[in-house]
Amino acid sequence: MNQPKERYHAVRKYTEKLCQPLVIEDYGAQPIPDVSPPKWHLAHSTWFFETFLLKKHLKGYSEFDPHYSYLFNSYYEAVGERVLKPNRGNMTRPTVEQVYQYREYVDQSMKELLSSDLDKTQLAILEIGLQHEQQHQELLIYDIKYILGYNPLFPVYDEGFKEYQPENNIQEFIPLEKGNYKIGYEGDGFAFDNERMHHEVHLMGAQISNRLVTNAEYAEFIESGAYADHQFWHSDARAWLEQTAISAPLYWHKIDGDWYHYTLAGLKKIIENAAVMHVSFYEAYAFAEWKGMRLPTEFEWEVAANQLDWGQRWEFTGSAYLPYPGYKKPPGAIGEYNGKFMVNQMVLRGASVATPENHSRKTYRNFFHPHLQWQFNGIRLAKNL
Amino acid sequence: MNQPKERYHAVRKYTEKLCQPLVIEDYGAQPIPDVSPPKWHLAHSTWFFETFLLKKHLKGYSEFDPHYSYLFNSYYEAVGERVLKPNRGNMTRPTVEQVYQYREYVDQSMKELLSSDLDKTQLAILEIGLQHEQQHQELLIYDIKYILGYNPLFPVYDEGFKEYQPENNIQEFIPLEKGNYKIGYEGDGFAFDNERMHHEVHLMGAQISNRLVTNAEYAEFIESGAYADHQFWHSDARAWLEQTAISAPLYWHKIDGDWYHYTLAGLKKIIENAAVMHVSFYEAYAFAEWKGMRLPTEFEWEVAANQLDWGQRWEFTGSAYLPYPGYKKPPGAIGEYNGKFMVNQMVLRGASVATPENHSRKTYRNFFHPHLQWQFNGIRLAKNL
Amino acid sequence: MNQPKERYHAVRKYTEKLCQPLVIEDYGAQPIPDVSPPKWHLAHSTWFFETFLLKKHLKGYSEFDPHYSYLFNSYYEAVGERVLKPNRGNMTRPTVEQVYQYREYVDQSMKELLSSDLDKTQLAILEIGLQHEQQHQELLIYDIKYILGYNPLFPVYDEGFKEYQPENNIQEFIPLEKGNYKIGYEGDGFAFDNERMHHEVHLMGAQISNRLVTNAEYAEFIESGAYADHQFWHSDARAWLEQTAISAPLYWHKIDGDWYHYTLAGLKKIIENAAVMHVSFYEAYAFAEWKGMRLPTEFEWEVAANQLDWGQRWEFTGSAYLPYPGYKKPPGAIGEYNGKFMVNQMVLRGASVATPENHSRKTYRNFFHPHLQWQFNGIRLAKNL
Amino acid sequence: MNQPKERYHAVRKYTEKLCQPLVIEDYGAQPIPDVSPPKWHLAHSTWFFETFLLKKHLKGYSEFDPHYSYLFNSYYEAVGERVLKPNRGNMTRPTVEQVYQYREYVDQSMKELLSSDLDKTQLAILEIGLQHEQQHQELLIYDIKYILGYNPLFPVYDEGFKEYQPENNIQEFIPLEKGNYKIGYEGDGFAFDNERMHHEVHLMGAQISNRLVTNAEYAEFIESGAYADHQFWHSDARAWLEQTAISAPLYWHKIDGDWYHYTLAGLKKIIENAAVMHVSFYEAYAFAEWKGMRLPTEFEWEVAANQLDWGQRWEFTGSAYLPYPGYKKPPGAIGEYNGKFMVNQMVLRGASVATPENHSRKTYRNFFHPHLQWQFNGIRLAKNL
Repeated sequence: MNQPKERYHAVRKYTEKLCQPLVIEDYGAQPIPDVSPPKWHLAHSTWFFETFLLKKHLKGYSEFDPHYSYLFNSYYEAVGERVLKPNRGNMTRPTVEQVYQYREYVDQSMKELLSSDLDKTQLAILEIGLQHEQQHQELLIYDIKYILGYNPLFPVYDEGFKEYQPENNIQEFIPLEKGNYKIGYEGDGFAFDNERMHHEVHLMGAQISNRLVTNAEYAEFIESGAYADHQFWHSDARAWLEQTAISAPLYWHKIDGDWYHYTLAGLKKIIENAAVMHVSFYEAYAFAEWKGMRLPTEFEWEVAANQLDWGQRWEFTGSAYLPYPGYKKPPGAIGEYNGKFMVNQMVLRGASVATPENHSRKTYRNFFHPHLQWQFNGIRLAKNL
Repeated sequence: MNQPKERYHAVRKYTEKLCQPLVIEDYGAQPIPDVSPPKWHLAHSTWFFETFLLKKHLKGYSEFDPHYSYLFNSYYEAVGERVLKPNRGNMTRPTVEQVYQYREYVDQSMKELLSSDLDKTQLAILEIGLQHEQQHQELLIYDIKYILGYNPLFPVYDEGFKEYQPENNIQEFIPLEKGNYKIGYEGDGFAFDNERMHHEVHLMGAQISNRLVTNAEYAEFIESGAYADHQFWHSDARAWLEQTAISAPLYWHKIDGDWYHYTLAGLKKIIENAAVMHVSFYEAYAFAEWKGMRLPTEFEWEVAANQLDWGQRWEFTGSAYLPYPGYKKPPGAIGEYNGKFMVNQMVLRGASVATPENHSRKTYRNFFHPHLQWQFNGIRLAKNL
Repeated sequence: MNQPKERYHAVRKYTEKLCQPLVIEDYGAQPIPDVSPPKWHLAHSTWFFETFLLKKHLKGYSEFDPHYSYLFNSYYEAVGERVLKPNRGNMTRPTVEQVYQYREYVDQSMKELLSSDLDKTQLAILEIGLQHEQQHQELLIYDIKYILGYNPLFPVYDEGFKEYQPENNIQEFIPLEKGNYKIGYEGDGFAFDNERMHHEVHLMGAQISNRLVTNAEYAEFIESGAYADHQFWHSDARAWLEQTAISAPLYWHKIDGDWYHYTLAGLKKIIENAAVMHVSFYEAYAFAEWKGMRLPTEFEWEVAANQLDWGQRWEFTGSAYLPYPGYKKPPGAIGEYNGKFMVNQMVLRGASVATPENHSRKTYRNFFHPHLQWQFNGIRLAKNL
Repeated sequence: MNQPKERYHAVRKYTEKLCQPLVIEDYGAQPIPDVSPPKWHLAHSTWFFETFLLKKHLKGYSEFDPHYSYLFNSYYEAVGERVLKPNRGNMTRPTVEQVYQYREYVDQSMKELLSSDLDKTQLAILEIGLQHEQQHQELLIYDIKYILGYNPLFPVYDEGFKEYQPENNIQEFIPLEKGNYKIGYEGDGFAFDNERMHHEVHLMGAQISNRLVTNAEYAEFIESGAYADHQFWHSDARAWLEQTAISAPLYWHKIDGDWYHYTLAGLKKIIENAAVMHVSFYEAYAFAEWKGMRLPTEFEWEVAANQLDWGQRWEFTGSAYLPYPGYKKPPGAIGEYNGKFMVNQMVLRGASVATPENHSRKTYRNFFHPHLQWQFNGIRLAKNL
């Protein structure tokens, strides 16, 4: 059985499935620099396979269109000039149809390549390409939500999309003993370079909440006036609040005294005991301060993970995104994948309702700048022993 | 014969004809705040008829969609909240198809309204609406050119679109005698409020070039180093040059030592003796300074107009956009049309290859901020007697 | 009698007299880019005489310090690199004492030069230098007021400085007949290049108020909610209001329900029937719109000037700052004086309580960008016949 | 013996000694938001004693001037409104003399307070106040250097100030064994809250350079074109380089092919084998990447400290500034001291030639945003075992 071929097919089709509810117009918008147009995700994930596999390893492969390398390269600066991120939304050509033709063309060629025997390096690049596309599947959902949720008509993406499951359980704190622990991925499966380098850390011990902070708890934080109370916020957070006038999670709207939020199923009243989402690290930190607690570190989280019910929200940690001891970024363009982001960002652990199946593990390290709200993230509290 | 009905039909269909070469994706882009998406032009010109005629004067008219008033209102602040100009490009809904349905719906209702006898006020608003749509037809071409010309693929809009006719004639200067002259529109036809108030001005006399400045002359200005020579530029122009690093007209590219420019027929070598286009007022002024001449005033231009061969380019004048003596802006939303722009802008006279037929006259006053380049404008020189 | 020598001495000493109430610390601040530090005014006006007279015409003159040419050149770009305007406030050296030594050094050399017979060109440059210094005397007062008025301690500059004289007279409108009038300076005295070119204009006739708008009238405009009512404002003005959150003249503070303003004599309650000051052109225009009137043009103002009681405030006109017919800027650095500002600015006529004696005449054209408030300006209304 | 009294006197006098070479004009400048005017440092460190000791604990104490609380409060938001940081440079009043009077007045009152028996809490606050003033002594030198070094006259602060001692020794790498180590301050002396919470960390082992990177090595990095080579830089660093056009350490100037730099002793040729200074974290990281090495973590640094010759430069570490396990910020205004900065900043260890005597220890944690260059910092390399 040709497993890579099937896996390739499955991943690629899932990206397109995510776009089915879209109209042509939705594919091109980029309302803020952090959001990429869906069309760009479709093409960029394809460009990866064309650039790192087909052009190098498929005999006689002829590039679909040499302009695409310039248009759909993201951050791989070793590979050539790129369209600056804030301008992606202005590229009306190639059309959506042409981008789907590009996908089809590359998929056909990949089918051919995958019919041959790939060596270990090629298989490794294939796997990175698929994992990369899965990461873009998650971003695609964030970006689609922003494009639709920013529109005053609040269009529905999918009535059946469940962003929110009520948290039923009573809050308990799971104890974590003082001691040395092993951290990072160990095994033969796929893992990104940033989670490898299995290593030891010493932890002082902690207690970690068994459930996430709910909408009702967060609404209480808002109503208490905490957004205006300097004592809960970082100095940089205060500057961000002043500049943006933010005073609630992204997508929250107060209508006639009640909190509503835009979801992929449309504008809805918030569910009180569902886990809060679309807060920034600054807000997560301030909420924890307000509660007299703190966020867990990424190491505490990883050690406790087997005892936690996680996977609905990416969860903020109190850890800055830094290389693990011994981390060495791979040479060449693939090496740009993770290392260059290891400053000014915070680690999130877990996964979210937007994460593709089989694309999560307890060692996975996600990371974002501390002011960003458009991810599907939540808050878990911790405290000292 | 029902003339208004036919005229309405003709103007409305022409807007749609201009959009025929577009793909769906082109309708939504707004690469810079000054450019509006074609979809927005289609809807906004329709909104005008719905708001000022159908909702007020067609019995039983039911609004197509109440959200559109918010989405497609431009500057008519008396009528309600509006989508901020820089965000027009992010509204992926309503779709292009829905906007065409909106046009169809309004056109059907207008047909009904135009079958009845309209009174003088209603006919006047109809005419403003049609003139308004014709103005947007011109802007539509500017904006389409920017959207396509900004794309690294340089897509062709229409191979047959002629932006450039060579200037064949020898340069001569037409003399204009010192004396009092009548300025402004006088007659029974349509004219905007800003060109009415027929009045007298005294001119000191001048000489005005019979032809426009050519690409070859402008290239010589560039090659002479004039962009870096402070003596030719206004103080505000110098700040603009420093900030934008502009050093040639918009759409000009130097490729292997030759000047090319993007046109609606694609990327082409410049035609040396065709009239230069896409320079700002700052550049037009600096060019005139470099030549030891000046731009004509709008009054000189109007007096000389019958002796000039004009209509290919909007022509910069040295006149600031100000009200004519006795100007009084009309009450209500219609009054916002012109008066509110009468500061910080310069007057252009003439018309361009993008101007719809029958939408030009020698008293017409166009106006733009002095740094803008994306209009189809040119340079005509003048000097003192 | 050596008149130029005495006149030179008098003008130079007056600049220093204006600085007498300052402490050393006040000489160096530049709270906003439009404000220059007093130290800079002292040095820059001195630099003018050194550069255009001493270095060229005084045999054996040795430059005080070659760095000063770079530090205290303002906009004379023909003469050499300059310190960018927003950085003037950060130059703590040379010290105030050194700048006074520079003045003393140049004054001694000028005394020597003025003891010889100057030719006509030299006398003309001398006169421009003195007029230039007088212009800086006026700016010096604006800038001192801003530096002190911006300080939360509201320090007093001079308890005896009278910015405000009540307007006693009943408002009347002085009629101005339709017809041709002569405009601009004619005579043998000094006048700037921008007011020369005596020429004819045709006016349609107008009525001009005999007095300026008062603080009480302006307060009524504020209280009526006019700052939030779009109909009175230019489109550019609205953007400025949104960006700055301005809602009153500069230096006005509402304290316990009463309007106070900072004056050079300290923080005072506004005098109701004194002429309003420190409004921008945008505000002057909006006030006139609110009154159903307009601002006079600079030509109407000049023709009516002999019938007006002017000199307390610079008065906004509805005229954009443009060259008079036949205007030709002088060659070289002196030519940068006026021409390069002839775009995006509005003309003010008259003079103010900050204008040095003998530095006003009815043909004088002052000019500022339409958003600036820190000048000593006021509002005079006009209406059509 | 009254030790606190003497220590108070010594610290306070040293601040004033640092200002002796300044002229009045130097005290007020704030060329960039990160730099505070020397006058502000003098007053702010005084305000600390007045606010947290005199007003609370000295019977009958009468505030020097109630405005000062507003003017010289920095980030202690719990205590009241503050002058926004970028505006400190525009406050010309109070004068320098008044600020010295303020110091004298507070010092007299402190003398009185220190003559009585202070309780443990009061003594703790006294010590924080003195440590705080010592931190400002260091910042004062950074800021003075920026104010003078930014001036085109390059004024000398102190001819005898030695910023640069040649690094004589051969580079060797000190090995650090894998294992658990104790980190943080333990003892009875003074330490800031951010370095307390003595705790255990596990290290994987490393090798740390015995000397700092030299000017010659850094010049080689520049000449190799590394500033333009994306592979060495963080993604955020690239944006910073593009925006600022920085391509060398702060204060470096290339003159006729040689590198000079501004020092407190004036403009000098760089000393090749002296330790490089005034690079940002971004640059330190990129330099290490270019060398194929890395920066030490703050834990590695602390463990190795006894074997290192440190104290000349603050040394960048690869550690983000985060709370130690169990960190709890103190309640009230004093609690704002450190915790609110624990995001987006990197830790520096060691001390510098600008650090006051007795104000350094191996557990001290300094921290700055990664783009800042104006500190007296350097680069020490590390590599894995």
